[in-house]
Amino acid sequence: MVVLGIDPGYAIVGCGTVNYERGKLSLVDMRAITTPPKMPFEKRLESIYNDLCDLIEKTKPDAMAVEELFFYHNQTTGIYVAQARGVILLAAAKYGIEPFEYTPMQVKQAVVGYGNAEKNQVMEMTRRLLNLRETPKPDDVADALAISICHCHSASVPAARRAVLKESGRR
Amino acid sequence: MVVLGIDPGYAIVGCGTVNYERGKLSLVDMRAITTPPKMPFEKRLESIYNDLCDLIEKTKPDAMAVEELFFYHNQTTGIYVAQARGVILLAAAKYGIEPFEYTPMQVKQAVVGYGNAEKNQVMEMTRRLLNLRETPKPDDVADALAISICHCHSASVPAARRAVLKESGRR
Repeated sequence: MVVLGIDPGYAIVGCGTVNYERGKLSLVDMRAITTPPKMPFEKRLESIYNDLCDLIEKTKPDAMAVEELFFYHNQTTGIYVAQARGVILLAAAKYGIEPFEYTPMQVKQAVVGYGNAEKNQVMEMTRRLLNLRETPKPDDVADALAISICHCHSASVPAARRAVLKESGRR
Repeated sequence: MVVLGIDPGYAIVGCGTVNYERGKLSLVDMRAITTPPKMPFEKRLESIYNDLCDLIEKTKPDAMAVEELFFYHNQTTGIYVAQARGVILLAAAKYGIEPFEYTPMQVKQAVVGYGNAEKNQVMEMTRRLLNLRETPKPDDVADALAISICHCHSASVPAARRAVLKESGRR
């Protein structure tokens, strides 16, 4: 199973693709999709969408795992990140890939073994599980790989949660 | 100038296209893009994106005017609306259409003449300005037409605001 993990953002989208076969994890691809601050926002969304489509065509993931969004102290930033997450899910739909979502606590639980792990513990465990020499940089990429690993470790258990609409509000 | 006004949402996207020539407004198209609640969320985004692309190809707008998002009492709903707004802006980027954004207060100011107007005053004025027999339904469509009118009345003045990133946070 090939899993594309995504740490959503609009300046940097962390992308980490891993393969999971018979209980063994291996790195397929890791990259940061970045957009320049001066670019009009809708063009940044288009750039993220196009780069992500290229990545999907190259790596052919079976599933996508995306960090769940919460709001932030800065709601304005949150609105922009959510808009970027919309085009990320659109790319999943285009290729018929099922998106799953996980909270940071679920990722820590799945990678380190407890939900209150420190960020550097998650990064170190991600590095070891993927047999990498160094912790991936930037952090967004390391986070994306951790989300992929979380899905690999969760996909066979009922904890796996599809990124569906969880509330019933009409808008 | 043909302007496509959008009231963003994921269950209903209000769309109102108007033409503005020599100070006169006329209706080009009005419709609600809807998605079924049981459809996986990423497929709802895809459905919105595809329907909006069809509408843009049919009506060839010169500009898009989109309601600015604020958060809501229900932040979860807000996150879903923002994700839908992302694919709406992506459609604008695909066709090279500039998106502008307006607050509800700016729309009221531009359509009725004061920013604290009641919703039914905005709807009645929208109906009159477009020479319609009845107030458009559902409300999302009437709101979208009001946003279009707001852009027509604002586009020649400095109040017109491009839907760019207004904050400098990195994420």
